[in-house]
Amino acid sequence: MRGSTGEPGSRAGVSRRGFLGLVGAGAALAAGGYAAGAAVGSSSPPEGKVHAFYGTHQSGITTPVQQHLYFASLDLTSSTTREQLIELLRTWTDAAARMTRGLEVSDGGAVGGGPLRPPDDTGEALGLPPAALTITFGFGPSLFAGEKGARLGLAGRKPTALADLPSFAFDLIEDEQSHGDLCIQACAEDPQVAVHAVRNLSRLAFGKAMIRWTQLGYGRTSVTSTSQSTPRNLFGFKDGTANIMSDESAELARWVWTPRDSSPVWFAGGTYLVARKIMMTIESWDRAQLGEQESIIGRDKFHGAPLSGGEEFTPPNFAAVDGSGNFAIAADSHVRLAHPDNNGGTRILRRGFNFVEGNNDLGQLSAGLFFISYQRDPQQFIDLQRALKSDAMNEYIRHVGTAVFAIPPGIGEGEYIGQGLFG
Amino acid sequence: MRGSTGEPGSRAGVSRRGFLGLVGAGAALAAGGYAAGAAVGSSSPPEGKVHAFYGTHQSGITTPVQQHLYFASLDLTSSTTREQLIELLRTWTDAAARMTRGLEVSDGGAVGGGPLRPPDDTGEALGLPPAALTITFGFGPSLFAGEKGARLGLAGRKPTALADLPSFAFDLIEDEQSHGDLCIQACAEDPQVAVHAVRNLSRLAFGKAMIRWTQLGYGRTSVTSTSQSTPRNLFGFKDGTANIMSDESAELARWVWTPRDSSPVWFAGGTYLVARKIMMTIESWDRAQLGEQESIIGRDKFHGAPLSGGEEFTPPNFAAVDGSGNFAIAADSHVRLAHPDNNGGTRILRRGFNFVEGNNDLGQLSAGLFFISYQRDPQQFIDLQRALKSDAMNEYIRHVGTAVFAIPPGIGEGEYIGQGLFG
Repeated sequence: MRGSTGEPGSRAGVSRRGFLGLVGAGAALAAGGYAAGAAVGSSSPPEGKVHAFYGTHQSGITTPVQQHLYFASLDLTSSTTREQLIELLRTWTDAAARMTRGLEVSDGGAVGGGPLRPPDDTGEALGLPPAALTITFGFGPSLFAGEKGARLGLAGRKPTALADLPSFAFDLIEDEQSHGDLCIQACAEDPQVAVHAVRNLSRLAFGKAMIRWTQLGYGRTSVTSTSQSTPRNLFGFKDGTANIMSDESAELARWVWTPRDSSPVWFAGGTYLVARKIMMTIESWDRAQLGEQESIIGRDKFHGAPLSGGEEFTPPNFAAVDGSGNFAIAADSHVRLAHPDNNGGTRILRRGFNFVEGNNDLGQLSAGLFFISYQRDPQQFIDLQRALKSDAMNEYIRHVGTAVFAIPPGIGEGEYIGQGLFG
Repeated sequence: MRGSTGEPGSRAGVSRRGFLGLVGAGAALAAGGYAAGAAVGSSSPPEGKVHAFYGTHQSGITTPVQQHLYFASLDLTSSTTREQLIELLRTWTDAAARMTRGLEVSDGGAVGGGPLRPPDDTGEALGLPPAALTITFGFGPSLFAGEKGARLGLAGRKPTALADLPSFAFDLIEDEQSHGDLCIQACAEDPQVAVHAVRNLSRLAFGKAMIRWTQLGYGRTSVTSTSQSTPRNLFGFKDGTANIMSDESAELARWVWTPRDSSPVWFAGGTYLVARKIMMTIESWDRAQLGEQESIIGRDKFHGAPLSGGEEFTPPNFAAVDGSGNFAIAADSHVRLAHPDNNGGTRILRRGFNFVEGNNDLGQLSAGLFFISYQRDPQQFIDLQRALKSDAMNEYIRHVGTAVFAIPPGIGEGEYIGQGLFG
């Protein structure tokens, strides 16, 4: 349970003791300070799970994928200085470290310094468990470019591979759902906890940075842990079967984390995030025959097994032919085109979510996949996306949002996110 | 786990045995037919919970409020006949009864009759548990009105109190988020399960009815069971403390269920649903002082105790004054104005959810409360809403959607939802 670690009596009329008395089961744990979160081990239910905010890499990348996402892209205001940006990153670091432990944003006292101030924390997550919250921060290409980059003293400091993605065939990108100076990826088992995190971080940025776009997602579409079963996307198929898993350390080193001799040096242990908002034409898909759906994907709908045979994790045999002499896995199927065997050998770590946001005036669902991938070079995503140019699935999807962010490495206590950038 | 109860081998290449073998833990239970859901008792985790679809009243009203909502309003197409509407309600009844047990929509076979047909079920909930899904259906005033009502043979069959709500002070209603001929309220512990339900019901309505508007909600804002702790809305305050609970049978009979001698008679055991989409100006609220927030609500932010003293469930003392001789609970506070003592004695059963849907171009959150209440007469809501005319909270909220639906009583197996209407 969320509690306060502020000083007793710092808020008139409501002492910390009074508050903790109310939350009941949380009180004994919380009396030890940060213990509400820290005392909860890995065998706890997901709602009670705490992921460490500090570490070699940022959390929220190889962390077992949670059920809910709230993602925000922010732009700095036109007057924000280098010092203000550093101050914002310090403030965000402290707040994120608190929130991932199940604590509210606070300088002391339970939600603020008294009745004559706005509460430090907006309060809607009071009483909720940590919910496996992770908060992951990143820097967009625009932060380093032009007048802004010069004002911030960041010109020439850009991670080498950080650049807007090129246009791809069939792209229908909308600028207002794309790009940004900064990003926050909040993932949790409870959407209220993820939204609370972004809302409070956005509030702490008041006057320095402003939300450009946000995305709510639910139902992970890929997993990063072999203990999680493969989830299904809104086409009803298992997705991300071939994903890089968090225990594949050699693959992570090869494909996800920037190396020790990376350029710039402070970016070692970082990675690049690619986000793509992909609308799905759900109603058309739902009218396609099962055989056609399976041919487009290249897997069977129940098991997720490749159409060349076997079970979900059987490697696809792209040479296999059916009784008529046709490829069992069609030449334009998604699985064939997206597979490392067919795209120059590239792999990425996927971490996407489904989304649904109302309907258009024909009554059709506005829904799809908010695709997120992590890779040590955005070129990996570019290679993969180009290989999908003839994907039969393109008839049923539409990329409307795009973004790329440099995700700085993790930090130790006392440091702030992205500190290396300003060193 | 979701499984199939279709005939073995009804889908070429994938037998039911093969499928059930894959889902593992679900197989033994599912071998007994509907047992996957039915065998799960009330002590199970919420994800495995099954709520009975059949009964005296529809489920999803007094059912302990789940964490996620997907709500849809539909309009009949202009050519839909009475017979087609009845057929739709039969189809919906069968599909809803299956889905609430954790089974896919299917006439036999696991997702359809073969590769040359679209799958019967869209598939994205395969492998997910029942997740406490409830599906609640209703009829809007427009179904009975004018040419449509005449075509359907429903003129004169309208539940007596069913009528569009009047306009209230400060209303900023948008038609495209309001009204509708039919409604579906799907609530579940997993948003993928709730969205799957509405998507498949909408698909079954193809050619007969079309989605008019939908609303995704998360984080219940009221509870209906004393075993659930009071949740918080996006203002950070506990909400719905004074709600009618599912074990208050006398209060339910008095305020929620239409009586045995109701008009029309077939509507006995039904109720009326009021939906209001309420936007919250989050950023302004977050800048208000804690004291001002508490004065507006009439309760303290931590405990949810009335400002006249005590704990959350202490009855508010509206006569109490502070040291300066002012009311402890301000005259324009939400708690005072919404309380039965101050609005003619009315009560309602609340069942609302938070929502967040992106941001406007000032970077402000588009977020709020999707208010749902159940009452035996919409006049109860009208009285309550009129009593809130001078509510200090009105400065921070904006009603943009409105709807009212007659919720027919529950049914027994073999019957279909709303059957009494056509008797």
